[in-house]
Amino acid sequence: MRGAVLHAPGDVRVEDREDPTIVAPTDAVIRLSATCVCGSDLWPYRGIETVDGPSPMGHEYVGVVEEVGSEVTTIKPGQFVVGSFFASDNTCEICRSGYHSSCVQRELMGPLGAQAEYLRVPLADGTLVATPDVPSDDLIPSFLAASDVLGTGWFGAVAAQAGPGRTVAVVGDGAVGLLAVLAARQLGAERIIAMSRHTSRQKLALEYGATDIVTERGDDGVAAVKDLTDGLGAHSVIEAVGTQESMMQAIRATRPGGHVGYVGVAHDVTLPGEELFFSHVHLHGGPAPVRQYLPELIDLIWNRRIDPGKVFDLELPLDQAAEAYRAMDERQAIKALLRV
Amino acid sequence: MRGAVLHAPGDVRVEDREDPTIVAPTDAVIRLSATCVCGSDLWPYRGIETVDGPSPMGHEYVGVVEEVGSEVTTIKPGQFVVGSFFASDNTCEICRSGYHSSCVQRELMGPLGAQAEYLRVPLADGTLVATPDVPSDDLIPSFLAASDVLGTGWFGAVAAQAGPGRTVAVVGDGAVGLLAVLAARQLGAERIIAMSRHTSRQKLALEYGATDIVTERGDDGVAAVKDLTDGLGAHSVIEAVGTQESMMQAIRATRPGGHVGYVGVAHDVTLPGEELFFSHVHLHGGPAPVRQYLPELIDLIWNRRIDPGKVFDLELPLDQAAEAYRAMDERQAIKALLRV
Repeated sequence: MRGAVLHAPGDVRVEDREDPTIVAPTDAVIRLSATCVCGSDLWPYRGIETVDGPSPMGHEYVGVVEEVGSEVTTIKPGQFVVGSFFASDNTCEICRSGYHSSCVQRELMGPLGAQAEYLRVPLADGTLVATPDVPSDDLIPSFLAASDVLGTGWFGAVAAQAGPGRTVAVVGDGAVGLLAVLAARQLGAERIIAMSRHTSRQKLALEYGATDIVTERGDDGVAAVKDLTDGLGAHSVIEAVGTQESMMQAIRATRPGGHVGYVGVAHDVTLPGEELFFSHVHLHGGPAPVRQYLPELIDLIWNRRIDPGKVFDLELPLDQAAEAYRAMDERQAIKALLRV
Repeated sequence: MRGAVLHAPGDVRVEDREDPTIVAPTDAVIRLSATCVCGSDLWPYRGIETVDGPSPMGHEYVGVVEEVGSEVTTIKPGQFVVGSFFASDNTCEICRSGYHSSCVQRELMGPLGAQAEYLRVPLADGTLVATPDVPSDDLIPSFLAASDVLGTGWFGAVAAQAGPGRTVAVVGDGAVGLLAVLAARQLGAERIIAMSRHTSRQKLALEYGATDIVTERGDDGVAAVKDLTDGLGAHSVIEAVGTQESMMQAIRATRPGGHVGYVGVAHDVTLPGEELFFSHVHLHGGPAPVRQYLPELIDLIWNRRIDPGKVFDLELPLDQAAEAYRAMDERQAIKALLRV
């Protein structure tokens, strides 16, 4: 099969890879309908995260089940399924508490390389969720968004306790940040402040339910949020970047007793204990337990109540993955979908 | 009046200080019944926190109202009252959300020096809570504990979401840690692991409701908590020390999706962002909004349902404050009460 492989920073190639097969009796193999490039794929692409030799890439996937192992009972060949970046058993105590991405049996999907024609999915019954039927083509981008960026933005909004009566600020205007705006709106937030300086992203944020746009960053961004909230700060701040600046911006823009939901994968972040102590904020986040939200998100998409697929503003065939990486790296695209 | 003043590290003297008077119309002046030495008083006493010249000490107080300003409406002379280390208005949006120690009008009590015969309390209506009547002498230590260490331990337990069905671990066996055990028990926790290596403190922890004692610290302490919790970690961990080691011990002893409540004043703590991200814990804490809990705590003490005053294992007259500091500094006493 064809699949994307990162050979060195900036060097992604779509090449022949071995076809995946059932390894464990709990595995499934799916034929992908679409996959995409994640903001987190850009860390190794930019050489900020090092990779050990040629690495298959991608961890976002939707597709049709091709084959299942002997112990798979609920997932069937022919079903259209959505999964996420961690395989999980959906039965352990941690999964039952809603933290599938810390499942005691979790397996990271990234190394399996979802930017490809086929993908082996471990713990298929616990990891994959089937749609009611094979969806029409125009819904594919939205289901693909549910696989990571929508689920991640949703977790950020839940972790920040976005909801009725709350003012929510979102730090980061990538796909996750934009979908955190959508999530906050769905969760009933009263006011949603999108922090963005890019016109096209501001436009999508407003479509997704943002009520205010703040273009300033850092201390100026914090001051702007405070100006909009009687000097107190937002009740809920979603951090969707993962840098020192964005984390401090999120913490400082939150009122005492408020909640920071952080979902940007932390890179070289260290939090000052004393400032955090006196900030009085709640801090929660990490790798989103997307699996927890998939049934609800699939329902919202299937019934066309949300349209998260709009974050894909570039669509290319899988063979042009290198171009997709380049466009995202240069911020010419919010997020690139690869049709398989 | 007589009052304790820190002149230099290790040098606390009880000397004549000016009698406090009503300054703002919202002030009250109280005649103290008792006061005490806080773990946080030891930071400047040990020279770890620097002080600018001679500093009145103390921020824990109970006593009888002597005089009130012209705008004080609910607090009356003759009432026995309990207050805490931040004065608060109890009416602003932050107070109404339960975060009195971040009140928009808050004033730190420490600089006013509660280790003294009299104390001026700003924002008296919002800060002080009266007991049903002047209590009998044997209840004084418990009401004094409510002023800080009980309220702080209680906030730690609430922030860690201690409650029915939860396994709670407590890092730190000072007065706050011990009272966090008491709080977790009152909040209905199923299992309470006290981390302590001192026999007398272990004994009090068990009296207060601890079900398990762990004597190990750091990584070994984390491993011991995991051993007691099917390898997952505790649902709730209360951090009551404030050092880098104790914070990391608390975070690492918490299961994914669990809650760390941290109330030890952070000193030279920096939290690694990436580890925190993947830990999946909730982190919340800071200076306890003791005022929020005072009505409930006063009720529990008045009706003799809890006995937090047992943390005072040394009682001296105010004039011997220097001896009280020395005993706590050398860990000969858990906490020293000063009768006024």
